[in-house]
Amino acid sequence: MTNTTARTPVEILLSARSVAIIGASDSGIKPSGRTQRYLRKYGFAGTVYPVNPTRETVQGIPAWPSIAELPETPDLAVIVLPQAAVESAVEACGEAGIPFAIVFASGYAETGPEGVERQNSLLQTARRAGVRILGPNSVGAVSIGNGLTTTFMTGLDQDRFEPTDDGIAFASQSGAMGGFILNMAHTQGIGVGRFFSTGNEADLTLPEIVEELVDEGTTRVVLGYVEGIRDGERLETALEKARAADIPVCLMKVGRSDRGAQAAASHTGALAGADTVYEGVFNRHGVHRAMDVEHLLDLGRVFAGEARAEGNKVSIVTLSGGAGVLMTDYAEDLGLDVFTWDDVWQSKMAAVLPPHAAVANPIDTTGAIAADQQMLIDALEVCLDNPSSDILLVLLGNLEAEEDSICERIIELAKTTTKPILVTWVGGSGRPARLLSTAGVPTFSEPVRAMRAAAALARDAHRSANPLSTRTDDAPVHDLEVLTDARERGAAYLDEVAAKTLLAAHGVRTVGEIAVDSSPAAWEAAQQLGLPVVLKLLSDEVAHKTEHGAVRVGLATEEDVLTAADEVLQVAADLDLKDRRLVLQEMVPTETELILGMTTDPVFGPVVVLGIGGVLTEIVADVAIRPAPVGVTEATEMIESLRGVALLRGVRGRTPVDERELAETVAGFSRLAAAAAEHAESIEINPLLADRSGRPVAVDALVVLRPLSSDIVPTEIS
Amino acid sequence: MTNTTARTPVEILLSARSVAIIGASDSGIKPSGRTQRYLRKYGFAGTVYPVNPTRETVQGIPAWPSIAELPETPDLAVIVLPQAAVESAVEACGEAGIPFAIVFASGYAETGPEGVERQNSLLQTARRAGVRILGPNSVGAVSIGNGLTTTFMTGLDQDRFEPTDDGIAFASQSGAMGGFILNMAHTQGIGVGRFFSTGNEADLTLPEIVEELVDEGTTRVVLGYVEGIRDGERLETALEKARAADIPVCLMKVGRSDRGAQAAASHTGALAGADTVYEGVFNRHGVHRAMDVEHLLDLGRVFAGEARAEGNKVSIVTLSGGAGVLMTDYAEDLGLDVFTWDDVWQSKMAAVLPPHAAVANPIDTTGAIAADQQMLIDALEVCLDNPSSDILLVLLGNLEAEEDSICERIIELAKTTTKPILVTWVGGSGRPARLLSTAGVPTFSEPVRAMRAAAALARDAHRSANPLSTRTDDAPVHDLEVLTDARERGAAYLDEVAAKTLLAAHGVRTVGEIAVDSSPAAWEAAQQLGLPVVLKLLSDEVAHKTEHGAVRVGLATEEDVLTAADEVLQVAADLDLKDRRLVLQEMVPTETELILGMTTDPVFGPVVVLGIGGVLTEIVADVAIRPAPVGVTEATEMIESLRGVALLRGVRGRTPVDERELAETVAGFSRLAAAAAEHAESIEINPLLADRSGRPVAVDALVVLRPLSSDIVPTEIS
Repeated sequence: MTNTTARTPVEILLSARSVAIIGASDSGIKPSGRTQRYLRKYGFAGTVYPVNPTRETVQGIPAWPSIAELPETPDLAVIVLPQAAVESAVEACGEAGIPFAIVFASGYAETGPEGVERQNSLLQTARRAGVRILGPNSVGAVSIGNGLTTTFMTGLDQDRFEPTDDGIAFASQSGAMGGFILNMAHTQGIGVGRFFSTGNEADLTLPEIVEELVDEGTTRVVLGYVEGIRDGERLETALEKARAADIPVCLMKVGRSDRGAQAAASHTGALAGADTVYEGVFNRHGVHRAMDVEHLLDLGRVFAGEARAEGNKVSIVTLSGGAGVLMTDYAEDLGLDVFTWDDVWQSKMAAVLPPHAAVANPIDTTGAIAADQQMLIDALEVCLDNPSSDILLVLLGNLEAEEDSICERIIELAKTTTKPILVTWVGGSGRPARLLSTAGVPTFSEPVRAMRAAAALARDAHRSANPLSTRTDDAPVHDLEVLTDARERGAAYLDEVAAKTLLAAHGVRTVGEIAVDSSPAAWEAAQQLGLPVVLKLLSDEVAHKTEHGAVRVGLATEEDVLTAADEVLQVAADLDLKDRRLVLQEMVPTETELILGMTTDPVFGPVVVLGIGGVLTEIVADVAIRPAPVGVTEATEMIESLRGVALLRGVRGRTPVDERELAETVAGFSRLAAAAAEHAESIEINPLLADRSGRPVAVDALVVLRPLSSDIVPTEIS
Repeated sequence: MTNTTARTPVEILLSARSVAIIGASDSGIKPSGRTQRYLRKYGFAGTVYPVNPTRETVQGIPAWPSIAELPETPDLAVIVLPQAAVESAVEACGEAGIPFAIVFASGYAETGPEGVERQNSLLQTARRAGVRILGPNSVGAVSIGNGLTTTFMTGLDQDRFEPTDDGIAFASQSGAMGGFILNMAHTQGIGVGRFFSTGNEADLTLPEIVEELVDEGTTRVVLGYVEGIRDGERLETALEKARAADIPVCLMKVGRSDRGAQAAASHTGALAGADTVYEGVFNRHGVHRAMDVEHLLDLGRVFAGEARAEGNKVSIVTLSGGAGVLMTDYAEDLGLDVFTWDDVWQSKMAAVLPPHAAVANPIDTTGAIAADQQMLIDALEVCLDNPSSDILLVLLGNLEAEEDSICERIIELAKTTTKPILVTWVGGSGRPARLLSTAGVPTFSEPVRAMRAAAALARDAHRSANPLSTRTDDAPVHDLEVLTDARERGAAYLDEVAAKTLLAAHGVRTVGEIAVDSSPAAWEAAQQLGLPVVLKLLSDEVAHKTEHGAVRVGLATEEDVLTAADEVLQVAADLDLKDRRLVLQEMVPTETELILGMTTDPVFGPVVVLGIGGVLTEIVADVAIRPAPVGVTEATEMIESLRGVALLRGVRGRTPVDERELAETVAGFSRLAAAAAEHAESIEINPLLADRSGRPVAVDALVVLRPLSSDIVPTEIS
């Protein structure tokens, strides 16, 4: 009875030959009856076992009184029972050897604490029974290839289209949005053939589904609608696998805004990670982030095709100069290169077009192509032949009388090339979009959508050409005893000197400094460092020294230093600190100011944050975030992704920052960040300055320790 | 024969009872035969006069041998003749008293210098003949109300829809894009009833069409596709009229990017104004800028309805928590307020929804509304009743079985309110979008599109609530003799002191400074100003003093000043300047750095530019631009539109900038800018600093003069 246990739920769904419907209803209108009706409507060729103890037949086929009495072990079960009956049904599935069940019922974690308990209990039962669960609160799953429409989504109640499976899989954490989007895809002729509503994710999660889709091997592109991931590491594993298998992953992640994230938290109860951290994870793994529904579908449309780009150079062909200008705007917005054609290729283009055509790119064929379609095809052929051109975009519109014949010719042409051809067909009957898209030529009704798809192809080219950035280097993590000692002592922070010693051991250059405990020693240290100096309070009890007037800069004379030392020691006395020392530091002239830090994300754990510091941060939050650790390559990507990277490159006579050393600093820091995360809540180097030679140097550092046990709450004096 | 001359071309088109087709073809397929075929197809009830000397009848009705022989003076003529025959036809129209002609032929200015000549000649002829021209190179005009489809666009070859006129007018500078977009609008049930392809704009321009549409009085919203405006002032006049008449104007302006603008220039030959200046003009007049085709149509859809918003507070109703999160993200992106409902209204909402519904906004009705539609309507009613709520957004999807009945109920509900209801219906048959939109409830298939439309309503509420910002105040413009004198002298620039004197006379506070011509005088001036001082070269021959080492700051001693004076005078000698003086200035501590300037835009003339200065400008071009002059209200809008406005408001212990005084400074400067534009190419105050009291003060200023005649090119020493 365990013949299928080696298969994953995704494999089971895509290949199932038999399905039991537990609680099947004779009414095809009721949610509990829809699955069976849809299975017939969409041509499921395997065996359907309705289980219903009260009926002889259900929707015209024999019903079975119980799971135990089924004549064979079906590949999967769909439990359409009300919530109260679900758990025992799962148990029965396990006893019958059914490895996978989809649970529609709601009334679990989404309803509050009691629901959470019910869900935990369901999960325990499923685990004991050896049954994998999709749901509860799932609207189901669909596999078009074998007609397995195990869902109650009314989106399947239509006769407008016959859905196809073009290798596009879609996993959605929102049942409603998932169902709407799936329907929209099918209406537009986009072959989303594998659909999973993950519901409350008691067992199977969206990252697991993605991983299983990649492992299964026939999926060409994965789409996802994401409200919140619970296991960040699992998502990263899935994304790494997808990247290794060259399967694009396109995610629409909602809850971007503060107010949206707040709504998401109240909706899902999930501990949402910061959206900026998701963004960092997506960037790391080359995930395509969809910003709206059509964007998501367009990504599916374009990656389902065979053609891939090799770069970001686009050729644009329109039958109107104005349309070419419009397309060029979008290309520039999206970082694509509307390169000017060289003379040789301009001549080749001119040879096939009428006199007043524009041939330099964007190419304006003039409206003559309406009457002379071969002229259009000739022009497109020249574009495909031009070796500098990576992606071809064609804008047409209306032309209802000619649409079939133009589409046919374009489809023929597309068969002769490995370069992507993206068509925009504005206005008209809508038929060209279906004809062309179905034939593997992605076609859009709105110019900006075509260009966004082109940008995704170019981004994917970049991803394919650049191997997975090494997340970590091999350098060892140095002794973290200073952290454990401090925690055992009950300290809330590391003192600044201890923090910098730890950073220095991990490759972060730190400012020259000497710790002292008296005014005379301060003056001696100042002389050793060279005037002027900075003098600060040194204590593991105070986080924000400036607020207490315990930081003095630009001390240039003995009197300056002694006065400052006396005053700061007095501050320490007034605060009644146990730890009352001083640190003297070299003055580093402020040119370029950075921030480098670690914080702990609830989903992805320790993350490293690199940002431009100074007053600029008041206007644009210019930061790059990645889960820790990162290697030098990824650290370099982080640096390059900063909007203010120009500031690091020597504007207005500044010394350029040594980017290689900065990347090494970030990488070293990130290894510390990853290793220290169990002891430290956060680490912040603020500022990390570039000195006159352009080398980064940590000037101040704060390590916030985790309390040893949760009943010891550190009292911050701030 | 001149009974219609008092009417504008727009009035003529919308009310025409007779039309002559000059050069009419018997073939309804040929461009020259399409107008007549379309007139029949779309039910033009007036008289059609085909003019064709070679035929007795054209497409089954009597043809006329010449314009002169027509039995009455038609309201307008459509000239479908080839280019060579157009000019004499226009002449004949004039002789026959036909006041308005549409010219399809191409082969004019778009083809090069000879074409430009042909176009000028055509215009001269039309002027002499007293005929207004739409085109040449126009694809025509359409008025759905009277069935006047005077066009050869194949977009009219369809049987999918019957276009309506919902008071939406659309003027397009691109014939092809215009035709595509018009067709797309009609397919989506958007009642774009008035269409104008302005072609080469030999005579009638897009701004004139907009103005005539406003004057005509029955248009509810104007859409435009803009490649480049030649007469900026005319556009501003039209936009002012539209604003006064409370008619929203929505423009899609292409050529935003550098590369796009370059393509536009090569396409239209037009001297394109800077896109940032257009943006400033649009902001001034509350124009809604559409970024893509669907955006443009959505704006038409939403403004064609009766309902207008009174603010930016939105209530969001969905049947899925995930969809609510998504909508909230978009609302936040677009500056809309998804306000949390108060307890009273939460209770009212809770009373009509099931237990686990979310009632705080975004409101999640749960999927129960599919079975209980009255519940949905009750929830929507509560939203409309909530007095804090300005705009209601509803997200639904699929529900094909229930769509008609839900739409009916929503349409009924919409009749009971003056608040806008925007529906998003994702997936499904597409029928609800048509049903609802046609009934005046704007409906979208993509959530972000609905929210963009809501944002436009909120923006329009703001525009309606704020009277047209006074473009100019009454303060007199002071004597500009210093400019005329300097030009007559052949100077390329005003010297810095003269520039600041001029600025000061226009209300710009300037730094304390003294001009001298020797080192001893410099030291005397320095003492008078108070140390430390700044010393600069003063000359009307040098624009960029710093590059010549002719600016010295922080001079604190007699030796400093004397040495600097000697050295800078030596620089002047080395450059062999005629004008060799020095200026001593007070040191203003640099906290907040601004730039205020005037440049000359080829389309809109003198524009005033206010920007955040300093190193930030290397990262974000943070500027506000408006045509000069601006009043204090508009200057305040400019200040508030800066991304870095937070920097002016006292971040990090800085003194907040006196925004009122800054606005007055900008307004004063802008009056000078407008008046001086005939003498000065540009004026730049860089930097305009805020001093310790927060008051703006001009520290450096450069006025670049226009050469008196074009053969005197100033030699800049830079």
